[in-house]
Amino acid sequence: MKKHKFYEDLGFAKVDYHRHLRKGFPEVIYCEGKTPQQVAKIALQIAGKGHAVLATRADKIAYLAIKKILPNTKYYKTARIVVVSRKSLVVGRKSLVAVITAGTSDIPVAEEAAVTAEFLGLKVVRLYDVGVAGIHRLLHNLHKIEKSKVLIVVAGMEGALPSVVGGLTDKPIIAVPTSVGYGSSFKGLAALLTMMNSCAPGVAVVNIDNGFGAAVMAYSIIKQL
Amino acid sequence: MKKHKFYEDLGFAKVDYHRHLRKGFPEVIYCEGKTPQQVAKIALQIAGKGHAVLATRADKIAYLAIKKILPNTKYYKTARIVVVSRKSLVVGRKSLVAVITAGTSDIPVAEEAAVTAEFLGLKVVRLYDVGVAGIHRLLHNLHKIEKSKVLIVVAGMEGALPSVVGGLTDKPIIAVPTSVGYGSSFKGLAALLTMMNSCAPGVAVVNIDNGFGAAVMAYSIIKQL
Amino acid sequence: MKKHKFYEDLGFAKVDYHRHLRKGFPEVIYCEGKTPQQVAKIALQIAGKGHAVLATRADKIAYLAIKKILPNTKYYKTARIVVVSRKSLVVGRKSLVAVITAGTSDIPVAEEAAVTAEFLGLKVVRLYDVGVAGIHRLLHNLHKIEKSKVLIVVAGMEGALPSVVGGLTDKPIIAVPTSVGYGSSFKGLAALLTMMNSCAPGVAVVNIDNGFGAAVMAYSIIKQL
Amino acid sequence: MKKHKFYEDLGFAKVDYHRHLRKGFPEVIYCEGKTPQQVAKIALQIAGKGHAVLATRADKIAYLAIKKILPNTKYYKTARIVVVSRKSLVVGRKSLVAVITAGTSDIPVAEEAAVTAEFLGLKVVRLYDVGVAGIHRLLHNLHKIEKSKVLIVVAGMEGALPSVVGGLTDKPIIAVPTSVGYGSSFKGLAALLTMMNSCAPGVAVVNIDNGFGAAVMAYSIIKQL
Amino acid sequence: MKKHKFYEDLGFAKVDYHRHLRKGFPEVIYCEGKTPQQVAKIALQIAGKGHAVLATRADKIAYLAIKKILPNTKYYKTARIVVVSRKSLVVGRKSLVAVITAGTSDIPVAEEAAVTAEFLGLKVVRLYDVGVAGIHRLLHNLHKIEKSKVLIVVAGMEGALPSVVGGLTDKPIIAVPTSVGYGSSFKGLAALLTMMNSCAPGVAVVNIDNGFGAAVMAYSIIKQL
Amino acid sequence: MKKHKFYEDLGFAKVDYHRHLRKGFPEVIYCEGKTPQQVAKIALQIAGKGHAVLATRADKIAYLAIKKILPNTKYYKTARIVVVSRKSLVVGRKSLVAVITAGTSDIPVAEEAAVTAEFLGLKVVRLYDVGVAGIHRLLHNLHKIEKSKVLIVVAGMEGALPSVVGGLTDKPIIAVPTSVGYGSSFKGLAALLTMMNSCAPGVAVVNIDNGFGAAVMAYSIIKQL
Amino acid sequence: MKKHKFYEDLGFAKVDYHRHLRKGFPEVIYCEGKTPQQVAKIALQIAGKGHAVLATRADKIAYLAIKKILPNTKYYKTARIVVVSRKSLVVGRKSLVAVITAGTSDIPVAEEAAVTAEFLGLKVVRLYDVGVAGIHRLLHNLHKIEKSKVLIVVAGMEGALPSVVGGLTDKPIIAVPTSVGYGSSFKGLAALLTMMNSCAPGVAVVNIDNGFGAAVMAYSIIKQL
Amino acid sequence: MKKHKFYEDLGFAKVDYHRHLRKGFPEVIYCEGKTPQQVAKIALQIAGKGHAVLATRADKIAYLAIKKILPNTKYYKTARIVVVSRKSLVVGRKSLVAVITAGTSDIPVAEEAAVTAEFLGLKVVRLYDVGVAGIHRLLHNLHKIEKSKVLIVVAGMEGALPSVVGGLTDKPIIAVPTSVGYGSSFKGLAALLTMMNSCAPGVAVVNIDNGFGAAVMAYSIIKQL
Repeated sequence: MKKHKFYEDLGFAKVDYHRHLRKGFPEVIYCEGKTPQQVAKIALQIAGKGHAVLATRADKIAYLAIKKILPNTKYYKTARIVVVSRKSLVVGRKSLVAVITAGTSDIPVAEEAAVTAEFLGLKVVRLYDVGVAGIHRLLHNLHKIEKSKVLIVVAGMEGALPSVVGGLTDKPIIAVPTSVGYGSSFKGLAALLTMMNSCAPGVAVVNIDNGFGAAVMAYSIIKQL
Repeated sequence: MKKHKFYEDLGFAKVDYHRHLRKGFPEVIYCEGKTPQQVAKIALQIAGKGHAVLATRADKIAYLAIKKILPNTKYYKTARIVVVSRKSLVVGRKSLVAVITAGTSDIPVAEEAAVTAEFLGLKVVRLYDVGVAGIHRLLHNLHKIEKSKVLIVVAGMEGALPSVVGGLTDKPIIAVPTSVGYGSSFKGLAALLTMMNSCAPGVAVVNIDNGFGAAVMAYSIIKQL
Repeated sequence: MKKHKFYEDLGFAKVDYHRHLRKGFPEVIYCEGKTPQQVAKIALQIAGKGHAVLATRADKIAYLAIKKILPNTKYYKTARIVVVSRKSLVVGRKSLVAVITAGTSDIPVAEEAAVTAEFLGLKVVRLYDVGVAGIHRLLHNLHKIEKSKVLIVVAGMEGALPSVVGGLTDKPIIAVPTSVGYGSSFKGLAALLTMMNSCAPGVAVVNIDNGFGAAVMAYSIIKQL
Repeated sequence: MKKHKFYEDLGFAKVDYHRHLRKGFPEVIYCEGKTPQQVAKIALQIAGKGHAVLATRADKIAYLAIKKILPNTKYYKTARIVVVSRKSLVVGRKSLVAVITAGTSDIPVAEEAAVTAEFLGLKVVRLYDVGVAGIHRLLHNLHKIEKSKVLIVVAGMEGALPSVVGGLTDKPIIAVPTSVGYGSSFKGLAALLTMMNSCAPGVAVVNIDNGFGAAVMAYSIIKQL
Repeated sequence: MKKHKFYEDLGFAKVDYHRHLRKGFPEVIYCEGKTPQQVAKIALQIAGKGHAVLATRADKIAYLAIKKILPNTKYYKTARIVVVSRKSLVVGRKSLVAVITAGTSDIPVAEEAAVTAEFLGLKVVRLYDVGVAGIHRLLHNLHKIEKSKVLIVVAGMEGALPSVVGGLTDKPIIAVPTSVGYGSSFKGLAALLTMMNSCAPGVAVVNIDNGFGAAVMAYSIIKQL
Repeated sequence: MKKHKFYEDLGFAKVDYHRHLRKGFPEVIYCEGKTPQQVAKIALQIAGKGHAVLATRADKIAYLAIKKILPNTKYYKTARIVVVSRKSLVVGRKSLVAVITAGTSDIPVAEEAAVTAEFLGLKVVRLYDVGVAGIHRLLHNLHKIEKSKVLIVVAGMEGALPSVVGGLTDKPIIAVPTSVGYGSSFKGLAALLTMMNSCAPGVAVVNIDNGFGAAVMAYSIIKQL
Repeated sequence: MKKHKFYEDLGFAKVDYHRHLRKGFPEVIYCEGKTPQQVAKIALQIAGKGHAVLATRADKIAYLAIKKILPNTKYYKTARIVVVSRKSLVVGRKSLVAVITAGTSDIPVAEEAAVTAEFLGLKVVRLYDVGVAGIHRLLHNLHKIEKSKVLIVVAGMEGALPSVVGGLTDKPIIAVPTSVGYGSSFKGLAALLTMMNSCAPGVAVVNIDNGFGAAVMAYSIIKQL
Repeated sequence: MKKHKFYEDLGFAKVDYHRHLRKGFPEVIYCEGKTPQQVAKIALQIAGKGHAVLATRADKIAYLAIKKILPNTKYYKTARIVVVSRKSLVVGRKSLVAVITAGTSDIPVAEEAAVTAEFLGLKVVRLYDVGVAGIHRLLHNLHKIEKSKVLIVVAGMEGALPSVVGGLTDKPIIAVPTSVGYGSSFKGLAALLTMMNSCAPGVAVVNIDNGFGAAVMAYSIIKQL
């Protein structure tokens, strides 16, 4: 492992082109805290190795910086994701992942998960705004959930939805707390704690607003099938 | 429950028109985290079923988006509430709810409670700026409190007012901590903890700045009368 | 108010016999932090005025100390409550209060609520272990809930039950978080935050493990009927 | 769903015998906060339906209470788990789950996961004490990890092991923070936050010390294969 | 200051006999975390310089260790204070300090303050159990407060009493939060935050349960008269 | 107390003109959360009773709103304080208060204290930037401290200055934590906790950035002399 | 120490020109919370004594204010540092300090450390973006680390890098948590706790984002060589 | 690195005998959470390789378990440390480390540091009970500090001592917060935050009560000399 570098050194970044082998997908660019120039240079480096590029938490300026040097670039505004030259990714695993939200305000996080999952070759069913305040909306859609292999459940405020879904199905649930809420939601902490303490087993949690991480967890699971 | 949908699916939202039957009032739009377009579409859906519309945490842009498609729309600026076509709501329960604040800065939250309560057909008496630093202002107005069925007590900073009121009356008190304050008020956490630990029984607490929730709790109580 | 004392001064306690008039029930003894001797003396004072006595958070030693001087004393072990000479309390308000728990471990807190409510003359229906991990247990018992005037919903761990119940009924819900759980439940904080952030309106919250406070809130509500 | 009860009502518990169908395994008894008598009665109820019994967080007294009425009972002391009449469970899914710990002190939590996983019919490989302070111990055992379908990674103190493992493999990682540590570990909070913020994707987290929950999540995943 | 030592070095302690000059009273022994032997040796050292000894947070064992070598020793059990040879202290400042508690459970902390204040030569009036749940008990005793120079107000649970007292008088108030309470009182944090955020000016706060510190603050104030 | 109002009701505010008698100075306007119009109306009300006006946390807009209707108005920019018609205040108590800061960035809070103290008729000595990183600056100025009756010690970051000052003098110290700092200062929480836990007795603490409260506490103390 | 002032009093600041003797380098200007004018005046004072000037957390306006009066001024934009007339500093200690980051977003904090270290006469090797998600990047560069005397390891998110580096070398590690991350990183708190609880000994931690402090700690260490 | 194991596998522990080469000293046993039998087996393994054994957080039972199989065993009761066969350690680095405490109650943590440092071949000077409440005790002993290469400063409660020491010397300071204190010390959190936010540069912090870690950090530093 020490003999070969397996990365390209840009000074401000060491682009890991070995990750594709270890994890099944290339390095992903997390844009926050990076300048548009840094983002674009890393994107160029990844694309130059023949890999598809996924950049998360990308604002429009980062998108334009990438698009300028890599024309085959698309921006998913709600998801805040940039994707470049998608074709190079090995597709085929069409297993269903359900992305479920409690409310409308949780959709941006859900879209980060959904777009990432699609980038990773998964088939996604979206089921939005089925929170526990009107539980018949969830019960009415249970059949869609039953066809999926993995459920990504996204909720802010009190974050109770994963517990309820977890009581109804035997699918593995990746719970994503969101920062939707106010006051004692403490920017998602309340939802995170709710999900952590779920009495319904078969639930595991990723970071607040981490739609990307949920999608990769789903991908890791489906890769084992 | 599974056979009938009881909701309208807008993709980004599943508008629950069954809620009117379960809860006694139609679905309410919480505007934060929704685009003005989403808010307006949900409002249209609710109004289309013949229900009155209540939208909370609405800024002026959301208000204008609704007003454009639903002319009978009014904006309560201090309360940050939009109300559409109020007449359709079944009115008649004229029970008195007192909305009390400790200070002047707590008024926006109090108005969210008062306007919501009025939307729900309740009669509201407002008693503002009677905090414990000048307790004679409260004692002088006790007779107004005594005529009410439910008290909504709104306070920021140390949030001591519900305890003091709770020691003086036998009315159920819905305590609303506000984010008014600075430093170790931690945006309302201090007031929330104070109210939670009230030594005066007959006090229950809603989320920081949640005037809306307090009003619905008052409505739920009065509905049982 | 300054002219008359309306309390008996024991040095370590000023027993408030005016509370009966203001709140509708006599002063209640919170036993923690008091010696058995102090508890017994306060109980004697209250009973001496002809009032019924309720002592909460009472261990067996406190119970025995009271029983020694006031023979008509009963100990509710699970609820950790001592009641003396119940007859003196004005009974008659037979309105139904439902006390609901998510799990079996929440029962001691629920019993504190139930025994207190019965002490205050309310009729109680108990519905235990109907948490969201097996939601059919709740749905199967909805008819019991519908007959009640007020719901006290007791839950530890993630505390999601009040939100789900709140989505199904229009009754006022007094949510009681419990310290049941471990790890990131942080002794009830997770459940408290969940309940505070409930997306289902008509929910208000009392302190962690505060079954007594929930019962008094229910009593305050029913007193307005 | 409302027509049939699908549970047995013991008063203090509603034993959910429908869970076996929904989740693939019977209701599990969480012993903390329950009396030994309650635990034994619930165990009897589950066993009476012909199901295997798993009781977690069981001390020796709870074990003896069960053993008295259900002779085919075994106690796993380190894991604090009681298992009754294991044969009735449908076995056969022999997929490998690796349970990995950072240190020796994390073993009780790991054993809760391992014993639960074995109860659920999974094959477990244990890899203990391979924390990041001597990373060659982990690297030397990577081949064992590579054969597994799911990794359960258990760590206290700074909880960095899941991130490091996540950088080396493409397996889904269920991270379990433990309360091992002192001072600013805050009983597992530090490890929980570390795991939540893992820069290695493919990691999801369960509650502090929740070995049981990790095993059920692993089971849910493998059930989809 | 560097030339002279002004302290006696016991190895495990450097007894500061200069403090008497700087602060007006000798070094005080905080017993927690010290062995009875260490406590006794420090007491002997202070008494050997002709000073009175005050030892706080002293259990009975520490008391007996001191009493064995310094016969003129008295134990205040509720206050958990040991006092030795009180006469040596310069007395005379008979200014009144009122020590006020919200409840009976707050008395141990109040007694720590009262006994310390008396040790420092102040005259103390005790006013216990006048919390805000029965505010007439406070109003009825306002005349006692008015005669005092400084008020020490001790309260647990929601800690609202200093705010109410602060609204009624112009005396400086030293607020002492106590760890009395449960659940979201978080061992005094709720009361501390309440007092910190008091809307009534003229209130300053010491540590949770720090009766000693409140008394010394009162002494520092009265020393300026 | 109930017979007379002792306040003027503006609807959004009940201006307490009785406070002057109870506390020795008129009601003070806390500007945050109030509109400039509200601030100006309250100022007019207070001035109309012949009292001096003090408005804290005032930005320039609030100042101009007051100045427009009350010409004798002065703005203290660093302190963010507006003062109107200062003469009406009973002056004469020329006792010295020292206002001490650890650093330059703490000066705005210190000025809030100093300007308030001067408004209340106290004489102020300012001693800025004498923090513990260069303790000779403090030792060199000890003589100024010794002449004062009360010390207000203002510090952010680790907030150690009150402890050090408290070890050197016998003056009562009002400690003011500031939000100066970054990272784990958590906007003043670190300094607040430091001051709360001071091992030097004779220290009491007010809220983060609460220069005003410190000055009123100093005034309350000096009023007793 | 009391006889001589050893500082220059600017009113708002007491510039400590004795620090150079005590600490080996002159007073440093922390710009946040100071006006550009204050920053420039302090810089002038330090430069006037013949010392080099280091100003941290400097924005461009502060830089320009200094440059206007001290022409030999340089701005390090990424590090947010201003340096004036560097030559006057005694150079010569060319010991190697390695500044290592987990990610690209951590570079601004790392540059604050690196530029400060160079200002203090140390030789710096930068090793950026070698976080644990691709641990071969770190292993490949171990030889650079081995040549250094002190390691400054800068990481946000889960902050695991210091533990891993600490397991591989015997160099003293100064760990710097950064506020890079989102959600439950709580602005660096997660990384701080991780580093505090490192199972690899030989790690000590400075404040979140405190690159400056890390560099001075490295300098203090190397000064002892 | 993968070819050779460099550790002995005991099942519950993988004893790392390579650590001696990487870190300069053998693996150390942290006893908490391990059974006495596990501790003894690990000790035997380390001693069997010819290394000295250090076991921290050892109670008397762990000590006796080791002593039974390794006779050359010594117990340091205050430090809670067991040392076996000290001679095998390479000694010689006699550089001075000063271990300084604020109070007497901090001594157990200081002794953990001192005994560990001596085990690692360092010469230790102990300076106990020189906290900031009587700063002349510290100033009187500055000469002892000046002779040391590294300072370990141990303090609970407000934890201000490292800042003050850091203002007086140019030695690297390893600050150790202790859990000494009560109330809002939050078991050492207050001291930890104080030290983290120290305005005196040249201070880095280890975990609460982590005397061991401070000693190893000191050893790492002195090893570079």
